Amino acid sequence: MIDSIEFVEDGNITSATGFFAGATYSGIKQNSDSLDLGLLISETPCLSFGLFTCNQFKAAPVELCIERLSKNPYAKAIIANSGIANAGTGKEGLRDAYIVAKFVANEFNLESTDVLVCSTGIIGQKLPLETIKNGLLKIKLTKSGGHKFAKSIMTTDSVPKEAAIRVNGDYVIAAVAKGSGMIHPNMGTMLCFVTTDAKISPEALKTAFNDAVEASLNMVTIDGDTSPNDSVIILANGQSQNEVILPNTEAAYVFGEALRQILIYIAKKIASDGEGATKLMEVTVTGGKEFNEAAKVARAIASSLLVKTAIHGADPNWGRIVAAAGRSCFEMDFERVSLSIGNIKIINKGRVLNYNKKAAELKLHDKNIFISLDLDHGSGRAVAWGCDLSKEYVHINSEYTT
Amino acid sequence: MIDSIEFVEDGNITSATGFFAGATYSGIKQNSDSLDLGLLISETPCLSFGLFTCNQFKAAPVELCIERLSKNPYAKAIIANSGIANAGTGKEGLRDAYIVAKFVANEFNLESTDVLVCSTGIIGQKLPLETIKNGLLKIKLTKSGGHKFAKSIMTTDSVPKEAAIRVNGDYVIAAVAKGSGMIHPNMGTMLCFVTTDAKISPEALKTAFNDAVEASLNMVTIDGDTSPNDSVIILANGQSQNEVILPNTEAAYVFGEALRQILIYIAKKIASDGEGATKLMEVTVTGGKEFNEAAKVARAIASSLLVKTAIHGADPNWGRIVAAAGRSCFEMDFERVSLSIGNIKIINKGRVLNYNKKAAELKLHDKNIFISLDLDHGSGRAVAWGCDLSKEYVHINSEYTT
Repeated sequence: MIDSIEFVEDGNITSATGFFAGATYSGIKQNSDSLDLGLLISETPCLSFGLFTCNQFKAAPVELCIERLSKNPYAKAIIANSGIANAGTGKEGLRDAYIVAKFVANEFNLESTDVLVCSTGIIGQKLPLETIKNGLLKIKLTKSGGHKFAKSIMTTDSVPKEAAIRVNGDYVIAAVAKGSGMIHPNMGTMLCFVTTDAKISPEALKTAFNDAVEASLNMVTIDGDTSPNDSVIILANGQSQNEVILPNTEAAYVFGEALRQILIYIAKKIASDGEGATKLMEVTVTGGKEFNEAAKVARAIASSLLVKTAIHGADPNWGRIVAAAGRSCFEMDFERVSLSIGNIKIINKGRVLNYNKKAAELKLHDKNIFISLDLDHGSGRAVAWGCDLSKEYVHINSEYTT
Repeated sequence: MIDSIEFVEDGNITSATGFFAGATYSGIKQNSDSLDLGLLISETPCLSFGLFTCNQFKAAPVELCIERLSKNPYAKAIIANSGIANAGTGKEGLRDAYIVAKFVANEFNLESTDVLVCSTGIIGQKLPLETIKNGLLKIKLTKSGGHKFAKSIMTTDSVPKEAAIRVNGDYVIAAVAKGSGMIHPNMGTMLCFVTTDAKISPEALKTAFNDAVEASLNMVTIDGDTSPNDSVIILANGQSQNEVILPNTEAAYVFGEALRQILIYIAKKIASDGEGATKLMEVTVTGGKEFNEAAKVARAIASSLLVKTAIHGADPNWGRIVAAAGRSCFEMDFERVSLSIGNIKIINKGRVLNYNKKAAELKLHDKNIFISLDLDHGSGRAVAWGCDLSKEYVHINSEYTT
């Protein structure tokens, strides 16, 4: 039973026992006011799983992580840089990623295989190895270094995204993420690292992790583009005093639910911080044939340019919402479709109601927009998060250069 | 053999023998300076095929056309209105579409089953039947009425889209289209009507029509949204003196090639006129496993928001192009990928060249942008057309209301 899931005040990835972090400006980015190199370390080995971009064009650090974790699901450290993605850099890029891991191992007394590497930023440039090597010397690992780490992975993000929750007083789950553009289901340019001190079996951790990511980070869409670098990694060092969480138990359910909650919190943070976004859109689809159909429809609505611009203009343009559903569902009988915006019912089983248009427009001026669509042909339910599309998005992405 | 395919000067859908058209302002639209009701009629029955939106949310007139053409592939007239889409209007909407066909039949001495009905405009409103009935009385059918018809189907289009070609001096193929937003493969908010006076067998016409639409209108993408109203209809009245074109003959090949050319011309017109567009983007993908993969990748690149904004900002951001390819191809080996922008080679088999960035930027200031990507793992080839994404797109779509 979930007695309590409480958000830790000022929570960050070092809120979990045994995790230390730090960050520095090493010189990868142009702007010396920003951080660009972060390091996260656990004092003991962590059970580790990762989910990575489905893009066929994978960055070198993603290849390194996939290779390492497939051989051995344990790690102790994550080194992450922003500014350069080390993508499209071929065999040299992969070699460079391995060299960065070696630098970290040498400097912090680890095995090279304990180190995972992540990068985000501009595609096609090589990592400046000397710069990174020198940067590492400047990183001070501390028990409160999570915040600095969170800042060091930001690119076009306007705010750091981090949180920690304490579950039943037993253990902590914490997460940090970056991402605000090139974000779409199956990861977008998103880096997300989760730490926990819970004691948990590999199978229970893997199941909870996959399920939680499916319901959270994979349901965020900013612009439909995915990146070569997207990575979500969980590290569980087992330092808390809880009994080991075994698969298919009450404890596993609680852990999974808590993990889902913190990742949904992070997912919403990412959607709200979408490039140029002024509003968060939460789309709930019910009555799908199965989860997959509901998820596909929810994501199609949340990513439709015409819905996104309508939300931006505070226009209750239900035609665009239904049209986005219609192109993404397996089948649709309009006579069964119901739609609400906020608590205002617009369509009831195919009949467009004489709703209060002014009130609906007012709802769409909120910072948080809730759209609910019922397909009424099954029990599939899914929630997706997105944001409005503003002129600022176009501005940001016409200017940001290779 | 194709001796000659020449564009007819001032060509329009009435350029083919035996077709007459006219249009009027009936009062469906607010603005009385615009036309909103167009009628196209052939003096003799036409062999007719249609391809319609894949959206599960289909407008009433689309249902009417599908029903009529599936029973009998012959028609004599198309009545089209802009301003109201007659979509999301349930059974009443369908009844209204049939009533409109009946009005036309009564007024112009046709069988009701000879009349096809198309609508485009705002979703969810009912057609004003009396307004349309009265409007019909004002329509004068003429041999040069194609231009007026072209204007009467425009919504957010900034220019009419029409052309006619004469093939080997034998027969004419002509086309008219509307569409500038909600456009994506498998039709977007697109209406396209093709007339021809060629004598052609049903099988030869159907094959040529399907193939030509696949390579043209289905390869245009403006914003990834499709509409409930998309329709492409061909009418062949056989009034020219050519020998009947039979399937799998040289003559069928020539007809198919000519039809493809005029529809590609129309497709490019639609892409150039994308809402807020300042540039036409032509994406050619070669080396796909098969046509389907090449087409999927070409459309993904042409519809990527990040590519569209980069093109808008004249930024040769090859990383975004390769990332869009990577998320849409069946598989990709970056070491085999080559990319050019215009005639400037950027990547050669996975190696990023030391290309002239200033020259590439200059290329991207052109009105016509050519992107060529080679996947180098098969012989699939496809071309897609799209446009840049500007702040104006956001403006148009935040303002245009239900």
